Amino acid sequence: MPHISLEDHLPGITGLLEYRKDSAQPIRELTQLLLRGPSTLTEGERELIATIVSHGNECKFCTTAHTAAADKLLGEYETTQAIKKDIESAPVNEKMKALLVIAKQVQQSGKNVTAAAVGRAKDAGATDIEIHDTVLIAALFCLYNRYVDGLSTRLPDTSDYFNTLAERLVTNGYTRLPQGYDHLKKN
Amino acid sequence: MPHISLEDHLPGITGLLEYRKDSAQPIRELTQLLLRGPSTLTEGERELIATIVSHGNECKFCTTAHTAAADKLLGEYETTQAIKKDIESAPVNEKMKALLVIAKQVQQSGKNVTAAAVGRAKDAGATDIEIHDTVLIAALFCLYNRYVDGLSTRLPDTSDYFNTLAERLVTNGYTRLPQGYDHLKKN
Repeated sequence: MPHISLEDHLPGITGLLEYRKDSAQPIRELTQLLLRGPSTLTEGERELIATIVSHGNECKFCTTAHTAAADKLLGEYETTQAIKKDIESAPVNEKMKALLVIAKQVQQSGKNVTAAAVGRAKDAGATDIEIHDTVLIAALFCLYNRYVDGLSTRLPDTSDYFNTLAERLVTNGYTRLPQGYDHLKKN
Repeated sequence: MPHISLEDHLPGITGLLEYRKDSAQPIRELTQLLLRGPSTLTEGERELIATIVSHGNECKFCTTAHTAAADKLLGEYETTQAIKKDIESAPVNEKMKALLVIAKQVQQSGKNVTAAAVGRAKDAGATDIEIHDTVLIAALFCLYNRYVDGLSTRLPDTSDYFNTLAERLVTNGYTRLPQGYDHLKKN
């Protein structure tokens, strides 16, 4: 049961964004910018960063949602499962391996990010802005995971929910989620 | 040395907010809303939440900055030192003790927040929105701390810096920091 009174039909982050709409607005904007804005990282790659951080924080709602979004964007289900098990053997390029390692370090602590991990990313062609965005996306999901679990939000009743949510995240992005929620409410 | 190329004269978060201004905007807005917007928690109490989380994450820049801001808002230097050592014996009321305990739990993991800690806060008169805001402020500083340390930003050369920064945070808040930075640059 959630620690505060949230709307029953809105699980996970969705009930929280509805609970305080004024703080939801900049959170949505930041997410849209980092995950869907112009970037040399694909939307799928950025969802992989969201996925590995949420998985590291053991946040079930966020991990399932962003795994589903990444799967849709990548057009397959293997990569998300592989990075959770072992980044080094996952079917992603060397630059993404290095960036996912950095994201995992950020998930544990900002102080855990090593010069060696950053050096590896740069050697693999990662730019400063890609490293910056990896760190900030990882930090943002440390916020999300703590927000969702810190208030003990509930999981949806059906796994179909995540499929519909991921479809919305891929089609509409993060700033237009309110419309997405309306559709979800009808399901 | 920072992991990416940042302006030398802008330590900690200030160089990062300058590095990518479009992502800085919603981060600033969210912080302004949560730390300076309308709330039944005082600005000083909210800075205590920022302080205890930054301290838990061992983020030197953020801890020093928000300790200085809280000290200015509270008009004394004891409370910030006391909460870092032991919340239970710190000179804050029972509700704030309970909220600071929740913030510390969030700092470790969202999953660490206990129903007992939330129950204690409610028994002490904390409202749902106060509990919500405590969790979200704590989560936001988990983002900040990881952003600042994950990119290995540098500390300022003088401790005077934090006094000036805190003065700006108290007087201008978080959305108007750019002007604050201009003043800091002249120092």
